[in-house]
This record gives sequence, structure tokens and C-alpha cells, in this order.
Amino acid sequence: MQPDLAGIPPVHVNLATRAVVGDALTRTAQMFGARTAVVDGGREVTYRELDETSNALAHALLDTGLTRQQPVAMLMRNTWQFVATYFACAKSALVAMPVNIALSPDDIAWILRDAGVTTIVADAAALPLLETFLAGEHPELTVVAVGESAPGTVGDLDVIDWDEFAARGSRTAVEVIVEDRDTVQCLYTSGTTSRPKGVLVSHVSVLVGGMTNALQIGHSWGADPSTLVNVLPLFHTTALNTLVLPVLFTGGAVVLHAQFDPAAILADIEHHSATHLMLLPIMYRALIAARGEIGAGLPSVRRAVYAMAPMPAELLDQVDELFPNASVILGSGQTEVVPATVLQWEEHRHTKANSWGPATPTVRIGIMDSEGSLVPDGDTGEIVYRGPHVASGYWNNPDANRAAFAHGWFHSGDIGHLDDEQVVWFTDRLKDIIKSGGENVSSVDVERVVTSAPGVAECSIVGVPDQRWGEAVCAVVVANDPAAVDDEFAARVIAHAKSNLAGFQVPKRVVVVDSLPKTATGKTRKHALRAQLAN
Amino acid sequence: MQPDLAGIPPVHVNLATRAVVGDALTRTAQMFGARTAVVDGGREVTYRELDETSNALAHALLDTGLTRQQPVAMLMRNTWQFVATYFACAKSALVAMPVNIALSPDDIAWILRDAGVTTIVADAAALPLLETFLAGEHPELTVVAVGESAPGTVGDLDVIDWDEFAARGSRTAVEVIVEDRDTVQCLYTSGTTSRPKGVLVSHVSVLVGGMTNALQIGHSWGADPSTLVNVLPLFHTTALNTLVLPVLFTGGAVVLHAQFDPAAILADIEHHSATHLMLLPIMYRALIAARGEIGAGLPSVRRAVYAMAPMPAELLDQVDELFPNASVILGSGQTEVVPATVLQWEEHRHTKANSWGPATPTVRIGIMDSEGSLVPDGDTGEIVYRGPHVASGYWNNPDANRAAFAHGWFHSGDIGHLDDEQVVWFTDRLKDIIKSGGENVSSVDVERVVTSAPGVAECSIVGVPDQRWGEAVCAVVVANDPAAVDDEFAARVIAHAKSNLAGFQVPKRVVVVDSLPKTATGKTRKHALRAQLAN
Repeated sequence: MQPDLAGIPPVHVNLATRAVVGDALTRTAQMFGARTAVVDGGREVTYRELDETSNALAHALLDTGLTRQQPVAMLMRNTWQFVATYFACAKSALVAMPVNIALSPDDIAWILRDAGVTTIVADAAALPLLETFLAGEHPELTVVAVGESAPGTVGDLDVIDWDEFAARGSRTAVEVIVEDRDTVQCLYTSGTTSRPKGVLVSHVSVLVGGMTNALQIGHSWGADPSTLVNVLPLFHTTALNTLVLPVLFTGGAVVLHAQFDPAAILADIEHHSATHLMLLPIMYRALIAARGEIGAGLPSVRRAVYAMAPMPAELLDQVDELFPNASVILGSGQTEVVPATVLQWEEHRHTKANSWGPATPTVRIGIMDSEGSLVPDGDTGEIVYRGPHVASGYWNNPDANRAAFAHGWFHSGDIGHLDDEQVVWFTDRLKDIIKSGGENVSSVDVERVVTSAPGVAECSIVGVPDQRWGEAVCAVVVANDPAAVDDEFAARVIAHAKSNLAGFQVPKRVVVVDSLPKTATGKTRKHALRAQLAN
Repeated sequence: MQPDLAGIPPVHVNLATRAVVGDALTRTAQMFGARTAVVDGGREVTYRELDETSNALAHALLDTGLTRQQPVAMLMRNTWQFVATYFACAKSALVAMPVNIALSPDDIAWILRDAGVTTIVADAAALPLLETFLAGEHPELTVVAVGESAPGTVGDLDVIDWDEFAARGSRTAVEVIVEDRDTVQCLYTSGTTSRPKGVLVSHVSVLVGGMTNALQIGHSWGADPSTLVNVLPLFHTTALNTLVLPVLFTGGAVVLHAQFDPAAILADIEHHSATHLMLLPIMYRALIAARGEIGAGLPSVRRAVYAMAPMPAELLDQVDELFPNASVILGSGQTEVVPATVLQWEEHRHTKANSWGPATPTVRIGIMDSEGSLVPDGDTGEIVYRGPHVASGYWNNPDANRAAFAHGWFHSGDIGHLDDEQVVWFTDRLKDIIKSGGENVSSVDVERVVTSAPGVAECSIVGVPDQRWGEAVCAVVVANDPAAVDDEFAARVIAHAKSNLAGFQVPKRVVVVDSLPKTATGKTRKHALRAQLAN
């Protein structure tokens, strides 16, 4: 699992000085052993229990014959066992590999094969997702299942009960060689444009990123610990690296939800006096709709963070009302840059609400042209990053690594610019920019306008090969009411676009569909749309 | 300058992902170029200027032929040029080696020879300190001097003016290979018991330590930067790694004082609306004495940190009154563990005022017996540390390294215990513990009592070889009034000790001296006392 970048050799750092993730839990457990670390439904797990359980699991994993830097696939919802398994891998120099359980059995099989997985920890309910993988050729496997209803076998394989597995190992510390730049986690990208890629992230990266995020998101060390209510899936970097780990590194509590139930979230915020939240805009909307009789709002929340894209002002105001003591801030980032690379400041709210905000304290942002030169502030180009919490590279993918680290910066694949206060403004994904009639068209800008056209529920803008334009701007639209789509529908959409956009941005073609093809993380699969339209 | 621990090989980390100190300044400079980074008398240096000047110096240093990991000795008071020189070394993979300018020319010569120094940056006023070094055998040297009155030569050597030197280099970034575990600084210990030892600290150590300290000392990232007024010398880890660098990593301002002038400090706190302070207890006393007409106190200060030893309650109350909005907290540590390993929390003030407080978020504290086993909470033993900001080791000192890192922990040389809340209580320096009549006597405990005896100004307790006791407890005392020392003086001191200590703790001998031998940092040279008394 060493990234194949420049053949990074291991560095021997002794136990007294190493910068590794497992030690961070051991430290908080030593300081706050009796405090609650994770709340999972009715189960409250203390720091001591989390630390000792992860020790036991680490011993049990190593006893199966796994050796350093081998992956452990995790097909798990948000549970305390997820957290314990992650730390068990971190402590034993194995690679935690949480897999998105919204993926299809085929995609999961592809990932497990790509990573060379021999050990799988899965929720009982997720075992059927292994069907394709088990049907094909695979190495000898260890499968551990969480949940009372776990079957004794899956396919031809014995399934080991998680509790029984954890009980096999000693609860004392595992002292194995774990080094700063060893890989601690491998998360696969969602793959909007190609097969998913395994993003390798090192211990020092997660540790520096976690401390930085703790600093900027307002956690403290000491007698005033944070309480986070988290429903975002732990198999994504957002929840794992920007939320849950920073809280556990600083002695706070994490209240886990595996499903988004607005009433249950509101109840837990109140019950646990939550100080921190991070949700998607649509989830804040749902909380507001469900708030019912919570008259005066929820005063315990100090930071209401959100992700995805800037929220409209009217929603921000409602969030303010629900959480009267909270700063409402936007975090952004990608699996390759952990944690969020940018965080919008409260002070930017009125002037820069549509921006991504400035860089975090340990990331540097540049804008690069296609020749590999940085461009001046204000100019548009590819957003590139440098910093200790940038990923080490992609698993088993030298071409992707060469491209991603060209010219000494990590290439985000996003287009945008920096303003004179170093705030990032996003234009589009590099691959989604349309080159039409000699102009660059941001699909994001056109989508914003077309989505606001009468009768349009959703839309995706892509370029299709065209004799006259090079690429023609094409709008793929889902109507609010399919029955209302008549012969004039496309003309009305184009007319709306014409009155709001420059000529070269206006869609040359409008295609109405029942639904847009999406990835497991809800992103539109534009490459599928383009392929469809090209035919 | 690689530590000779386990022959740590360099790890090749690319520019996009490395965790190095120079990049931290480049990041803050990109974000906050026009903000003031350092105030040095009438000179306000912006982040952009600091970043570009350190680039220029880095180029100039490399152009003299210095190669990676060679030391640059810095004989400098607190100036903005000190800060720029430190970052120049960090950026060019050289080792910044600030030297204590309170040391004698002999000690300085010993250090410069031990480190193999070929390049010296010095205040003009500090050039005479090089006398012994230059008189002996030495390699070819580059000497750069700061200050308008810098002479053109020192001994036979040409002295290069700092401004002229800095003007030689390009102000653009130096992109050289700097790696996470490269050494960024080497500070020599004060040497209470032996020759000073060069403490090697890595980039990742300073970075993780700096971010952690920023977190726990209450700096923020964004629109609410900290302002630190600092008078502690930058050639010590306290000022450099726990105060100044964390502020510069997070975009705040540092107001430097090279001398402790209480009125000037108070004026600058007011003038710059300082948010952060760290002083010795005796300095807080002086501020209180000098406060004059500052009626309502200085409201801008949010953290009044102090070091050395717990303050008496009455002084704490006065500090509270002077800084009504500040938390008053104690930080502790040593050159080998950067930053302060422990920080007392405000909440502990009434119950644990005499403790060192709990560990920081990135350090783990253990108590170890002489066999290398950790002992249970409450038991006394050697305080040992683990964490990413522990030093890599001592320069050119394999014996010291073996001893310091025995059993996988860093050995502090301090004796103490952890209570059931993981708060550290210090007993004594390991080497100062007296083994008397089969009991261990803490010199610190006896000193506290003897210092409170009538007529005693200062005292140091050491053990001297003794037929009956093994070691006899001996009090070396400075009297308040030498003229009042009569034949009964020693008997009165012993009587006072008897009524406050157990029999085995009571000094068996009292020696009155005019003054105690001290190191440049104000610590008593007990090994000198012991040698004297043994004769």
C-alpha cells in the first residue's frame, strides 16, 4: 500500500517521537478515560473502552496474518464499531479502507479487487453487497460482521462475529512500527469521470489536518470539550477527517446517527447540548421544517458548519434563528485534501457568500495555468494545493499520480480564481468546462440559470461535439411536471437563458429526461450524459 | 546534522505534501501579506516582507556554499531579523541554531565547535562573544552582523552587513528538498549538570507543536488574529516554539522586546491591544509594581501565560486584576519537548495550583521506574514523554540519545507523579534527588521550607557524600543580611526545618554563601555546589 510516487522509503521514527493517528486516541484515553467518546444509539462508549477495544481489534487483525500497510475494507454505517475499527488499523500500521455502502455490488467488487483486499469488516446488513466480489476470483478472505443478526456464513465463507473477534485480542497497546508517512486510510473517490481511485492518506496528514481543523472549527483542549452530532457518513473524508477525528483528538464526544431523521437529530442536539454540527444545506432545511415547538432555538450549538455549496441568504437566516449562538460556516474540500481545504469565515458572509472562502492554516492555494505556472490573483485557472494534509497519492495508479502532482502542486481538477483577499471562487470542474465558439463556458454558471427557469426541477449542462461551436452547450433537464412538457418547453428554457446569460453560454439544445444519472454521493455522472448525447 | 539515533534515513516527500516550517510562513504571507507580522521597536514588518526577506536570506545563505542540514549559529537578541533568519534556515533545509547570548565566550566557543559551525549571524553587539572561538582553531567562516554600528571586521575576519547580505539574494521562493523529519533547529541546553547538549528538533515537530499550542493557547485562524507582546528571549524554546511561531503560523502579530522594561511592556500591551502574554512570575510582579495609573486594568489580554513554577495565590489575584479578561495559565516544558508539555488549566487553579497541569493534546505523559516500566497513577518516578513534538535527539551524542530514548519514551530527567486526573506533580530533577538514610529527599521540597526560614534570601539543597547517611542533606544558603549571620544562624535554619519537615529531610549541614552559582538561564549549578562541598 505504499504510494508509487517517488518510491518513498519508510523512515524509522521511534515510538517516542512519531506522529501517528493511533497514539492520538491513546493520549485522549489516558487524559479522559471515563469521558464519553462516542454515543451510538443507546450505547455510550468511553475513551477507555474505545482505546482498549481498538487495541484488542488490532491484535486480532494482526493475528490473522495481516502485515503492515495491508488494507482492511470496512463496509459500515456510522457506528462506534466503525470508529474502533479505524483506530485498530491505525494502531497496527494497517490501512483503514472504508467503502461507500451506497455503491453497487459491482463497484464494490471492483474496489476490493483493485485494493487487493483480504480482510473485510462489514455490517451484517452490508454482507449482500459482497455478492459480486465473492462470486469472482478472490484471495483467501477474513470476513468479520457487526450486528446481532449476522449470518454464520456468506457464500462459502465463514463469517466471524465482531464481538467474538474483538474478544480474541489483548486489550493492551499494540506496539508495532508505525511511521509518520505510512498510509492510515484509503478512501475511493466517487468516480464521476472514471473508475474510482484509492486516495492514500498518511498518518501525519490526518494528524496535522485534524489538529488544524480542531483549531479553526473551535474545539478546545481541556475542561470545555466539544460535542458533535454527526450524521454524515464516516466513509467520506468530510465526516471522518474534518469532524469526528478532530473531536476525538481533543477529548470531545461524538453522537453518531446512521440515518438522517430530522426529529431525532434535533432531539439529540438538545439532549446532548451539542456544540458542533455539520450538515448539507438540504438537511438544514429539513431541520428547520421539523423544528416544531423548539421555540427559542438551540443555544448550545457554537458552529453550524455546512458543505457542498453556498446556501442562499434566506436559508442562512433560518439557520441563524434555529441556532442563535452558532457561527454558520461553509467547509469545502475533496478526498485528496484532508480536512476541508477551505472554510468560509463568518465575516465573509455578506460579501463572499458564493465563494468557497479562504484556505485553512495548513494549506496553500494557487491558481495554475495549463503550462504549470501560477497566475496572478483574479486570473482563472486550475485550483492547486500544497500542504501537509494533502494525500500521498492514488493507489496503484502511476498515471493519475503523475498528473495529480505535476509541477510540485496537487491538482484539484477544479477551475476557479483567488480574489485579492485570497478567497477562492469556484468556476467549474476542469472536465466540465465547455469550450464553445472559442469561449470557456462554466457548466455551473449555466446550470444556476437554467435551474431557475419556469418548469425546471433539475438540470445538468454538458458540452457535445458540434461542427460549428466545437462543443455545443447542451442542457439536460428534468421537468417539475413531466405532463406539462410541450413543444414550446425547450424554447421557453432557451428564452429564459438568453435573458440571463451571454450568447455563447446559452444552451443550443435542450433535452428533457425523467432523471439524471447520479453517483452514490449524489453527483451527476456527466461523462455518462456526454456519451449518451454524442450518440 | 542528522541525529545519530537509529540512522534515520531521509524520506522523500514532495513539495505538495511536505510538513515543513518554512511553508507555514509562506502560507500566512499569502493569506495576510499586508498584515503586520513583527513589531520591533519603530519597525513594523509585514508578512510579505518577512516572507520575502527570509527568501532572500535563504538564497544568500545557500550561495555561500552551505549544504542541507548544516547549522547557522544565531547570536541575536529579540529582533525581526532573528525571525527572518530562522525562517531562512527553515526554508533552505539549514539548521537554525540560536545561541544564548548570556553565555560566556568560552561556553559559546564550545558550542560553536561542537556543532561544527561555519556560518554565524550575530548582532553587532554580540560580536565580542566570538572572541574565544575565533582565537582557537576554526573552519573558514561567514559572519553576518545586524546593526548599524557593525564593524567591518572581527579578528581577522570580514563581517558582512546583514542588510547587504539579505540584498544579495532573490526575494522569490527557494524550492529545495526539505523533508518532514529534517532538523529545523538546534538549541543547546543550559547544562546544569554537564556540557550543553544540542537538541535537534524536526520540522514536523515544530509544526505539530505550533498548531497544538495555537489550539490550546487560544489563537484563531481568520479575522480575529492574536497579538503577542514577547520579551522572553527567542533563543529559548519557550518564546520561539510556544509563543512566536504559533502566532506567525496563524496570522497574528508579534511585538518584540529585547529587554524587560515593565513600563514599556505595559505601554505596548495597551498600544497594540495585545491578546497574549507569557512572562515569568517575577516579571508579572514588576508589571504590577509599575502599573501606575492604568486604573481599570488592561482588558485586551485574553491569555496571561507564565512559566517557571506555580505562582502564589496573592500574585495570581493581582495578575487577574491587571488583566481582568485573561485566563492565567502555567506552561511548562523543556528544550527537548516543544512546545510546553503541560499547561495548567484555569479550572485547576484552586485545587492544583502547585501542579504542572495536564498534558497538551499531542503529548503523552508517563511515569517510569528505573527498570523501564510505567507505574500506576499516584506513584512517583521519572516523568517520560511521547509525542510528535518530542525532539529527534541530541547532536553528536550517542550516549545521551541512548539514555534519553530508553524503553521507547523520552526521559525528562524530572521526578514526579500523575494524579487521578492525569495532572503532573513535579518532585525534583532526577539528578537532584538526595538519597539519605534509605529515603529519597526532594531538594525542591526542602528548598521551599528553608527559603521561608527567617533571614534566608535564597537557598539550594544538595546531597553530599556522608558515612552515616549515604548522602547528607546540605543547605547552601544566601542570607538576607550577611551582617546578621551569627553563630546561631545555622541552628535557627535547622530548627525551622525541623518544625516543617520529616527528620530525614532536615538539612544536616548549613553553609552560608554570598551568592549561588547560576547558569545563563538562572538555574543553580548544583553540580558545581556538590563538587565544592565534597572537597
